[in-house]
Amino acid sequence: MVKDRGEALKVLEDWGRSIVDYINKGEEPVMRIPARTLTNIIWDEKRKILVLGPKAIERRFLDLNEAKRFMQTTLMLKLIIQSIKENVYPTIRDLYYNGKHTMELNEPKLSKSFRENTWDEQSESNAVIEDIEVATGVLREEMGVSADVKGKVVGPIVVRSKGFEIDATKMGDTALSLPPNPDELDIVRMDAKYVLVVEKDAIFQRLNREGYWNSEKCLLVTAKGMPDRATRRFVRRLSEDYGLPVYVFTDGDPYGWYIYSVYRSGSIKLSYENERLATPDAKFIGVTASDISKYKISDNYVIKATDRDIKRAQELKKYPWFQSHEWKRELDLFLRTRKKVEIEALSTHGLKFLHEYLLDKIHNNKWIE
Amino acid sequence: MVKDRGEALKVLEDWGRSIVDYINKGEEPVMRIPARTLTNIIWDEKRKILVLGPKAIERRFLDLNEAKRFMQTTLMLKLIIQSIKENVYPTIRDLYYNGKHTMELNEPKLSKSFRENTWDEQSESNAVIEDIEVATGVLREEMGVSADVKGKVVGPIVVRSKGFEIDATKMGDTALSLPPNPDELDIVRMDAKYVLVVEKDAIFQRLNREGYWNSEKCLLVTAKGMPDRATRRFVRRLSEDYGLPVYVFTDGDPYGWYIYSVYRSGSIKLSYENERLATPDAKFIGVTASDISKYKISDNYVIKATDRDIKRAQELKKYPWFQSHEWKRELDLFLRTRKKVEIEALSTHGLKFLHEYLLDKIHNNKWIE
Repeated sequence: MVKDRGEALKVLEDWGRSIVDYINKGEEPVMRIPARTLTNIIWDEKRKILVLGPKAIERRFLDLNEAKRFMQTTLMLKLIIQSIKENVYPTIRDLYYNGKHTMELNEPKLSKSFRENTWDEQSESNAVIEDIEVATGVLREEMGVSADVKGKVVGPIVVRSKGFEIDATKMGDTALSLPPNPDELDIVRMDAKYVLVVEKDAIFQRLNREGYWNSEKCLLVTAKGMPDRATRRFVRRLSEDYGLPVYVFTDGDPYGWYIYSVYRSGSIKLSYENERLATPDAKFIGVTASDISKYKISDNYVIKATDRDIKRAQELKKYPWFQSHEWKRELDLFLRTRKKVEIEALSTHGLKFLHEYLLDKIHNNKWIE
Repeated sequence: MVKDRGEALKVLEDWGRSIVDYINKGEEPVMRIPARTLTNIIWDEKRKILVLGPKAIERRFLDLNEAKRFMQTTLMLKLIIQSIKENVYPTIRDLYYNGKHTMELNEPKLSKSFRENTWDEQSESNAVIEDIEVATGVLREEMGVSADVKGKVVGPIVVRSKGFEIDATKMGDTALSLPPNPDELDIVRMDAKYVLVVEKDAIFQRLNREGYWNSEKCLLVTAKGMPDRATRRFVRRLSEDYGLPVYVFTDGDPYGWYIYSVYRSGSIKLSYENERLATPDAKFIGVTASDISKYKISDNYVIKATDRDIKRAQELKKYPWFQSHEWKRELDLFLRTRKKVEIEALSTHGLKFLHEYLLDKIHNNKWIE
């Protein structure tokens, strides 16, 4: 893991030099890149995360099938290195547009000219960013690539960003919006007993205004639905560096359970990130299928599952991190009853019941994982 | 405008009492509610906002067509008053679930029983919240109803929330996430020369990290796409109370122009909010149709408009606040060329061109309105 953008620059330049070295020696340049194919994604039972296996691909410059992607990778590497040197923080879309141009080759012998775009779609430029991440071990956040930031936090934590200390107990009704690279955030002080990750932003606002974190001495975090990488990394740091229990609170539907799953173990497709972003000890305290009877939520407050919900629940059942006895039982129950429930349905028991529910699940160990 | 939740409570209780008064006098209870129908929405040319006209409806308890909605309105009024007294901050969805229940009437004479839900869909409970807002002049934010918060700010402003002062120049790479009710935010100090509202969160992050607001002495605001009510209200306060110019920076497509339109004048449907949320002096510095040639954005970086884009542009043309010479020309040009451009396409001129573009548009008055 690199400490800052300067260190990231060094790693990226070294990788670039290793490619140039081939040319200087009169050899064909080759990039060695860990394979991100499904067959190279391995479930690490002990650490409870997906990791990349040992397989790697060799991207060869003189291979006609690889030459374009080779060019794209070096072009992207150049753009990222340049952005670090010029102290700009482009988004992946800036990099796509900045690098997109038409190359023209005049071939007088054939009295013909060839035109080819460096890339046509952003999916192409994004893919080579991922290649550079896995090849160098430097995440895009560490390169200083900007992205949407969804995460917010309040509670007993003091952080430092660019020399400024921010005390997240002194935000009133506002909240601290996370930085694009949470690893550059120094944690100066931490007095929290646990982390409560809330799916819904409006529920985060409620709990903040109602003083939940204050009486519970916990951190409240939200990423408003599906978490972005920065929020996942921040939560992971809180779990790993401070040993804080992490509780994820979502709606009682397959989408909410999937959000929990992303915090906990990440996605299969982007398994190379999980090693740094996943929080395998995260516990689920959202609404489960069996909560519908446990918390006496009548049919008046229950929503019929859609075909999409059913399909997603069937997918969740296959994930290695949903193989616990509890999750299997809950997913099976959901597939039988086809009933889902929103967090706010708890308010049928009164506008303050939300607090009772959370305290009961957290302090009486009624979470599942 | 009420000062705090205590004042909101007083206004709401007074309104409730005015309904009870009818009953005490032995009369039929009647609610007088300004009509939110299209025919009662008036374009105020001078203030450049849509406002509600003088028409009002009378909701009568003894009118069979109105009795249910009458019951729903008093039920919602009760829930909101109760939430203020109990110091909880429910979301509109909490209010929906909390108020939803089945009423049962046994009619022994007919040996029959009737069952009726207070409301079946959230659209019904939302509608009576809007009724209470227009009838009492108290916005839901002032009632303490919680909602998703999308807005963030950084730059030379010091605010106070619940007694805590927060200096938005001392956030580093983080940002200040706005409170659900920005009117409860005291502005302690303001040193900004203007407000730059950025559509895209990732561009907000870029500009923050690249020190844009620092060198420009401006506030950077984003609501990540379509603004929520709180962000609109906050921007309006900056414009109204401090006379700050407000520049809105979006993609060059009808959706981006619509986002500008929402900041500027709001939506037609929710025109009763506009009086408090709209910023009629907001200027547009996003990408226009004519910018494609002005800024030499080649076809390689231009996106073909979809049918939906075309339809939206045709709708924009009808809005009273898009009748300026400049906007008419731009919308017509777009409808002819059918080309749209993302902000990031500016990066084809280099990763730093974004700054040149903004400084040129703002300081050389190249905005339109």
